Amino acid sequence: MSKQIVLTGITTTGIPHLGNYAGAIRPAIETALKDDVESYYFMADYHALIKCHDPVRVQESTKAIAATWLACGLDPEKVFFYRQSNIPEILELNWLLTCVTAKGLMNRAHAYKAAVQENVDSDDVDPDKGITMGLFSYPILMSADILMFNAHKVPVGKDQIQHLEMCRDIAARFNHIFGETFNLPEVVVQENSMVLPGLDGRKMSKSYNNTIPLFEDEKKFRKLINKIVTNSLEPGEPKDPDGCNLFAIFSAFATPAEIAAKRQQYADGIGWGDAKKQLFEYLNEMLAEKRQTYNELMANPDYIESTLKKGEAKAREKAAVLLAKAKKAVGIAPIY
Amino acid sequence: MSKQIVLTGITTTGIPHLGNYAGAIRPAIETALKDDVESYYFMADYHALIKCHDPVRVQESTKAIAATWLACGLDPEKVFFYRQSNIPEILELNWLLTCVTAKGLMNRAHAYKAAVQENVDSDDVDPDKGITMGLFSYPILMSADILMFNAHKVPVGKDQIQHLEMCRDIAARFNHIFGETFNLPEVVVQENSMVLPGLDGRKMSKSYNNTIPLFEDEKKFRKLINKIVTNSLEPGEPKDPDGCNLFAIFSAFATPAEIAAKRQQYADGIGWGDAKKQLFEYLNEMLAEKRQTYNELMANPDYIESTLKKGEAKAREKAAVLLAKAKKAVGIAPIY
Repeated sequence: MSKQIVLTGITTTGIPHLGNYAGAIRPAIETALKDDVESYYFMADYHALIKCHDPVRVQESTKAIAATWLACGLDPEKVFFYRQSNIPEILELNWLLTCVTAKGLMNRAHAYKAAVQENVDSDDVDPDKGITMGLFSYPILMSADILMFNAHKVPVGKDQIQHLEMCRDIAARFNHIFGETFNLPEVVVQENSMVLPGLDGRKMSKSYNNTIPLFEDEKKFRKLINKIVTNSLEPGEPKDPDGCNLFAIFSAFATPAEIAAKRQQYADGIGWGDAKKQLFEYLNEMLAEKRQTYNELMANPDYIESTLKKGEAKAREKAAVLLAKAKKAVGIAPIY
Repeated sequence: MSKQIVLTGITTTGIPHLGNYAGAIRPAIETALKDDVESYYFMADYHALIKCHDPVRVQESTKAIAATWLACGLDPEKVFFYRQSNIPEILELNWLLTCVTAKGLMNRAHAYKAAVQENVDSDDVDPDKGITMGLFSYPILMSADILMFNAHKVPVGKDQIQHLEMCRDIAARFNHIFGETFNLPEVVVQENSMVLPGLDGRKMSKSYNNTIPLFEDEKKFRKLINKIVTNSLEPGEPKDPDGCNLFAIFSAFATPAEIAAKRQQYADGIGWGDAKKQLFEYLNEMLAEKRQTYNELMANPDYIESTLKKGEAKAREKAAVLLAKAKKAVGIAPIY
């Protein structure tokens, strides 16, 4: 049986935080360990440019994300681990797909419609004000990312389901016009993907500025955990673990037995100071070794770069074959 | 003094005709001979895909156009002569530009607006019906073609002036956000570019199906010239050369002395049969040798291919430097 191809992109605009680790990085690395799966992980730096025009941030984020995934145990020998911008074939395929994509399809994309709505609501004259062609055509680039490697499965959050449907649409249209070329990828919706609360109790997200960076140094890490919002119950008073931010974060990483024991501590009236101390110690132990590796990697950029270059070579070998097939299908081939 | 970079693209959807030769090929080859000019000529096969989903036509057109330009005297050693689809850097740059291009700018492009108007006029519900993202975003790809080589001058017809202005807009926006990277190209409007009448007297154009293929074999070539529409004046009656299709075609190629002599013949009442015979002989003599070369080239596809591969190598050497600069400007560079 041939392996299932699973593909995941990470937009390079931020520094990975605890929420990313629980919700995306850890499960993806677990998937990568399966023998019946061929995994593709890429730094989506061309997607980053859609919203981020700060070169330093893109550059630093790319480095930090690559180092994080490696420190968390992604084996670059076993998976395809590359930078999107190192695979020119993706951009070539992007154009082939652009030529078969109906503009009407892009008009209906949620992200674009939301941006238009915002303009309309604020009585701006031009509904397209501030909207770039990058935002408008991004579902096509996402399709190219996926179709370039004929991925079978793409794990995404609910907000990305529509884009996956568009990808299937575009692939089917290309196949219809030019003959069977692309596999139609299946969306894998991460229904119960872990969402962690941030410092203020809202979803941990860089847009809320409430994150706990995954590999913050130990002292700052402790400080941040101490800042997590709790209610004002006194030590000794029984506490409800459900709805407690500390408990939610703990549960994302602990075993069922550990979680049950923690529930008991809450019932017994553990104080917030102790609960925070214990959470810090638990997470710190879980992360200490990985943090050490991360710091070593960050101090060794040449190693990260050479790892990504190896991934590039592996990925381009695959990409070149499919791109040549797609180009030939549209009439672009050596002259004969 | 550094050379002026002049860039010209030829969309690969048709077989070159006499009108293309007079209006585009001959003047471009003359420009290429100038010592203070560095000329770029490319088969715009990625543009062809916007309107043409017929792979055989794209493939055959690419071959015929390359053979035509070579047969007409383009020296591939002296100029940059390449296939757009062989330069992946152009598609990478296309994405960088896409991320700084306002969607509103594309909304205003003539070609797109004309397509929308057609839908509106025919009471179609969706004004974007049948419009692809290829058509919608084509001014960005055209900008990438031009900016990739920092062209100074782009000779275009009047219908392309707006696209050149958009290219300058996009380049200026990129420079503004990310620092000076691109030269702002100047449009060179071919005001008095030769427009030849076709068989029916309308502008010679493949969309009117009234063309005389440039390298049609001699017998068919004669037949086509005999088909050119004239009025019904008899031999011996004086004729007005202005407004005569035969005269217009002749004048596009003849010297002033030859044109003056032809005017006299018209005044003297030359018969249409004789006028057509003379036009055929004049054009046939002008084209016979080139036609021979064209046929030899068409019989030798490997030579055409290797010529385009050499052009590719030359062009990519230039493109790689500028692309790396542009990528670095946006934050995409080796990790350090």
